[in-house]
Amino acid sequence: MQISAADIAILVKGELVGDKGLLVSGFSGIKEAKDNELTFLANPKYESLLLDTRAGVILVPRQTSCPGKTVIRVSNPSLSFTEVVNHFLEGCADYKPRGIHPTAVISPRARIAAGVAVGAHTVIEDGAVIDGGCVIYAQCYVGHDAHIGKDCLIYPQVIVREKVFLGNRVIVHSGTVIGSDGYGYVPVEGRHVKIPQVGCVLIEDDVEIGANVTIDRARFDKTVIGEGTKIDNLVQIAHNVTIGRHCLIVAQSGIAGSTKVGDHAILAAQSGLVGHIEIGEGAVVAAQSGVSRSIKPGEQVFGSPAHPLKDAYRTQAHVQRLDKYVQMIKDLKKRIEELEKR
Amino acid sequence: MQISAADIAILVKGELVGDKGLLVSGFSGIKEAKDNELTFLANPKYESLLLDTRAGVILVPRQTSCPGKTVIRVSNPSLSFTEVVNHFLEGCADYKPRGIHPTAVISPRARIAAGVAVGAHTVIEDGAVIDGGCVIYAQCYVGHDAHIGKDCLIYPQVIVREKVFLGNRVIVHSGTVIGSDGYGYVPVEGRHVKIPQVGCVLIEDDVEIGANVTIDRARFDKTVIGEGTKIDNLVQIAHNVTIGRHCLIVAQSGIAGSTKVGDHAILAAQSGLVGHIEIGEGAVVAAQSGVSRSIKPGEQVFGSPAHPLKDAYRTQAHVQRLDKYVQMIKDLKKRIEELEKR
Amino acid sequence: MQISAADIAILVKGELVGDKGLLVSGFSGIKEAKDNELTFLANPKYESLLLDTRAGVILVPRQTSCPGKTVIRVSNPSLSFTEVVNHFLEGCADYKPRGIHPTAVISPRARIAAGVAVGAHTVIEDGAVIDGGCVIYAQCYVGHDAHIGKDCLIYPQVIVREKVFLGNRVIVHSGTVIGSDGYGYVPVEGRHVKIPQVGCVLIEDDVEIGANVTIDRARFDKTVIGEGTKIDNLVQIAHNVTIGRHCLIVAQSGIAGSTKVGDHAILAAQSGLVGHIEIGEGAVVAAQSGVSRSIKPGEQVFGSPAHPLKDAYRTQAHVQRLDKYVQMIKDLKKRIEELEKR
Repeated sequence: MQISAADIAILVKGELVGDKGLLVSGFSGIKEAKDNELTFLANPKYESLLLDTRAGVILVPRQTSCPGKTVIRVSNPSLSFTEVVNHFLEGCADYKPRGIHPTAVISPRARIAAGVAVGAHTVIEDGAVIDGGCVIYAQCYVGHDAHIGKDCLIYPQVIVREKVFLGNRVIVHSGTVIGSDGYGYVPVEGRHVKIPQVGCVLIEDDVEIGANVTIDRARFDKTVIGEGTKIDNLVQIAHNVTIGRHCLIVAQSGIAGSTKVGDHAILAAQSGLVGHIEIGEGAVVAAQSGVSRSIKPGEQVFGSPAHPLKDAYRTQAHVQRLDKYVQMIKDLKKRIEELEKR
Repeated sequence: MQISAADIAILVKGELVGDKGLLVSGFSGIKEAKDNELTFLANPKYESLLLDTRAGVILVPRQTSCPGKTVIRVSNPSLSFTEVVNHFLEGCADYKPRGIHPTAVISPRARIAAGVAVGAHTVIEDGAVIDGGCVIYAQCYVGHDAHIGKDCLIYPQVIVREKVFLGNRVIVHSGTVIGSDGYGYVPVEGRHVKIPQVGCVLIEDDVEIGANVTIDRARFDKTVIGEGTKIDNLVQIAHNVTIGRHCLIVAQSGIAGSTKVGDHAILAAQSGLVGHIEIGEGAVVAAQSGVSRSIKPGEQVFGSPAHPLKDAYRTQAHVQRLDKYVQMIKDLKKRIEELEKR
Repeated sequence: MQISAADIAILVKGELVGDKGLLVSGFSGIKEAKDNELTFLANPKYESLLLDTRAGVILVPRQTSCPGKTVIRVSNPSLSFTEVVNHFLEGCADYKPRGIHPTAVISPRARIAAGVAVGAHTVIEDGAVIDGGCVIYAQCYVGHDAHIGKDCLIYPQVIVREKVFLGNRVIVHSGTVIGSDGYGYVPVEGRHVKIPQVGCVLIEDDVEIGANVTIDRARFDKTVIGEGTKIDNLVQIAHNVTIGRHCLIVAQSGIAGSTKVGDHAILAAQSGLVGHIEIGEGAVVAAQSGVSRSIKPGEQVFGSPAHPLKDAYRTQAHVQRLDKYVQMIKDLKKRIEELEKR
């Protein structure tokens, strides 16, 4: 499949400068792109990369000039690039299952909308509802009374336990478990007695969940992942957690029970939040940080235990200079001893 | 389903104060409960929550008074609450599989006790033994010569590899792998040569294991999880680890090879233990801590590397005040220079 | 099965000292071994263990003497021990599946070499290629156009997504997902728009991957795991990461997007690398460390943020002594005040 620079400019409503007829047959990053590929420059800061790229056509920010290259100026090059890639993919090999595979075990009491695809060996239990446009790959498990909204994409070996509710256009990657029991016990004479976990999980529209993630069902009530939030691989979300809309929860981070995360918050990789705290809207938790108290909207924290970014950086700088400070203390001590001798 | 305050009091052997005839048709946390729901107050410290709760009936500690509310006084409100919830659930929808699904692939050389449930597409290999009362959900894998004790509950897509032994009343959540090879290699001329991992795993009675946990088989001998221990999601237990009885191993923590953890120890979330150390009975490792030496019984540690809690807190406090100390040092230096000039 | 000390000596080309006819029927660690078992002493440093072991026969380093014991002197006892264990296992029960199970769902457009074993309920999609000598256990998923090289061992419930390429003799443990989408979004008016992840994953020869690992496909191009590298359980490898040859990536560590790890590097447990950095050949990252900048070949780092080992240890020592330093500062202040009063 090929597309001309002129057609790309039309597709992304951009301003073409250079060779209109140049044909592109693939896409790549700016450093790796070949002369028959499309690439993009997201950040004007890296404009120098334009000089070295071999890419045939480059999507660039408005105002960028690049003599001798074929560029298309747009307001958001990353987004425009994504649009072109998606346009390309429509014409490419499609790996999704189609129809309902005969080895799938679907309860007669489940309701599967017309046109839904269900892969081989997938199991769908009594009372489950799968809305139109969904693609459920092979070997998935959809529990009793679970609900999967429209146009969801569920990759192989995903577990959606009973009474879990997914909104529309939710994507879940392989190995992820939604609706396992929360971790709750009552201590009784040195033993841990299990507290029933009878709540559910609500995943709102446009959420994407990575591979081997775990999201526990609530003790009562529900664990909630807000609209548009994106969760990376191997993340742990405990029972009764509420995550707001459009958050980023990066790989291997973990959130303990009943904590609330505000809209647009970012939890970087391997960070951890204790239970029963609130992370304000737009707050940012740096990688590997451990947060043990609530955080205000917009606040940025770092460290284990986490502190506001500015303080944490200053503290870190001091810690790295401790050797010098210790020498200073020893030197001062000596000089005081000298003074005392006078 | 409904139950009266009087009947709840009989069930939990508690002392009822208030409206005996009040009917309850659900249960919830103290902040969320509605007027037809049961709740509980675990800790007298939070007694003020009693004033605001809308719950119809509240299980409270002995001696608690709450004029105008219907309360039932018991010695362990959390436990009594759990008893009532379990009583309720007996009459509710049951999501467990029943019987042996025709798509399950069960070796004729496996021994499955009468009445065991095996879900769709589950595979049980030669020589495996499943004792009475077990419920094995869909899509599980039970390897050769594995043994699953009485009344175990194995959720969908659990992997129990060959020669793994589970005791009675063990619960395993989805995606968990028990008996994968330990991580062991011999360096030979710059390459890593695999050391065969031919031991097994022993999970004792009443253990519960969360979702997407990994427990490796021993190199020889066995990896052991002691009776009553509860393991949260995404935990890593390496080969030849021995965990004692009634421990709590919280989400995303990891234990390296051959380490021994004493009874009643607690490893908080995202903590890590190096290999070949001993954690004493009742010791507590705080969240995100990294433990690189053995810990005495009852000791509490924090930090990476971990130190006794009291020292670690004092050190942390000093670290946070480093800016002030550095100013002090600079001020002292100036004053010494002044003195030296005299 | 039994083997004599003399036969073991021949097998490992070692020098036997002691009872040639002694029969061994098992193997174990030096502390646990019984009198009819073989063990080994890897490190001459622990030579004192030889006095206490009950093992019948012991593989020891050349030059080791141990009067009264039957020892076999070899140049690499760990390796020789592994050879004997493997020799033993050839005669033992074999748990691998054989042939193609009738419940496996294999596309007629997949190419499966003669003699390949495919377990129950495994799914192999269109265009997938499985080379000779492979053993694919039950309930695995091999996506469209995936390629699995010769003599690979794929444990139950492994996911190999479309276009993923495995070399020869690769071992993958249960629950691992290879080829899930990378975590990439473009921010557009407060929402995260998904960037298509259309690259692939290349796993080179002799790689072993633990349980519940996640390895994301590249945005374009490929994510690469180099020859002979060994990955432990619950590790996260993000899109476009390149890992060199013969690396050790220990449990629960994580590598963010586009980072390059040199040959023979070691990432200890629960460590994390940010994206777009380079870890030099033979570098070592200590457990729980967080690496935010590139590391030179052979460099060893520790801490979060990570610093060179020597600096990090010195800094740690200072931090632990802060209480003493603070007392010193306060004492100096007092003495200066005294001097100022003069």
